[in-house]
Amino acid sequence: MSKTQQANKLELVLERELDVPCNLVWKAWTTREHIEPWWCPKPYSAKVVDMNVKPGGAFNMQMFDPEGNKLPPNNGCYLEVVENERLSFTSALLEGFQPAPETDKNSEGCDFPFTAIITFSDLPGGKTKYVARGLHRNEAEMKKHEQMGFQEGWGMCADQLVAYIKENLM
Amino acid sequence: MSKTQQANKLELVLERELDVPCNLVWKAWTTREHIEPWWCPKPYSAKVVDMNVKPGGAFNMQMFDPEGNKLPPNNGCYLEVVENERLSFTSALLEGFQPAPETDKNSEGCDFPFTAIITFSDLPGGKTKYVARGLHRNEAEMKKHEQMGFQEGWGMCADQLVAYIKENLM
Repeated sequence: MSKTQQANKLELVLERELDVPCNLVWKAWTTREHIEPWWCPKPYSAKVVDMNVKPGGAFNMQMFDPEGNKLPPNNGCYLEVVENERLSFTSALLEGFQPAPETDKNSEGCDFPFTAIITFSDLPGGKTKYVARGLHRNEAEMKKHEQMGFQEGWGMCADQLVAYIKENLM
Repeated sequence: MSKTQQANKLELVLERELDVPCNLVWKAWTTREHIEPWWCPKPYSAKVVDMNVKPGGAFNMQMFDPEGNKLPPNNGCYLEVVENERLSFTSALLEGFQPAPETDKNSEGCDFPFTAIITFSDLPGGKTKYVARGLHRNEAEMKKHEQMGFQEGWGMCADQLVAYIKENLM
């Protein structure tokens, strides 16, 4: 089996055509004030703790449940930052590429190393082809993430992203 | 305590002035045929399994003991590739930034997630300032790596690197 096939077995993918321009999708992903409103499926919410959009820069988000209770920290760093094209980040490494501490095996949350690779490209009519790939270290964790609702969660966020851009950035 | 101080607690650093030019040190680190001869402290040896010098590209090395027996695989990917300046790689992520499988807690080898950040800069007289930083996920693993001989091992490799360049690249 080739490496690509192996990688694909550990990958979840959301692919969408978004009815907003590529540069605004990029802006909403990479600007502190514009990411918080849509990044987490409502009625959950998110706050930026630390965000330094460059390879090795911190991408630390705090999520809250509908009652306002903090969920476990969501810390990591950026890997690739290619404006209007590609944004990658991981929880396997923290700020400065420091390997993240071991995860808690008993956690019920999304508490496993995870890499996200988001690609953006222009489509005719001011639309964006939007592909979000999630990479996992093994099949069990990939399936757990799938069952937790990867498609639904990332899909809701994509809808919120489009609505936010139309209301606030256009 | 600031994040930087926390990070430093988990870091091992080798700093050297090398008596060879910066661009040749870069070449020896990033070229398949030129990395194998010096990368592993002799009488151990190393072979490149896969090497694609770009962010997310594989950096997979196979080490052998003096009898020619294979050591556990040494797989990872590049994080930063800035010619003649900075080369970073990690074992926490594999090719394509895929999170690496869990390590074997019972291993006696260097079997833990590890990030290396190597910086190179020109010094007068065709010399190179060479700094190799090793980042660990916790203090226990940092200390284990220190006791395994990080300074001695990376120091021997730096000596071998200089000798190889003088004999073969100058």
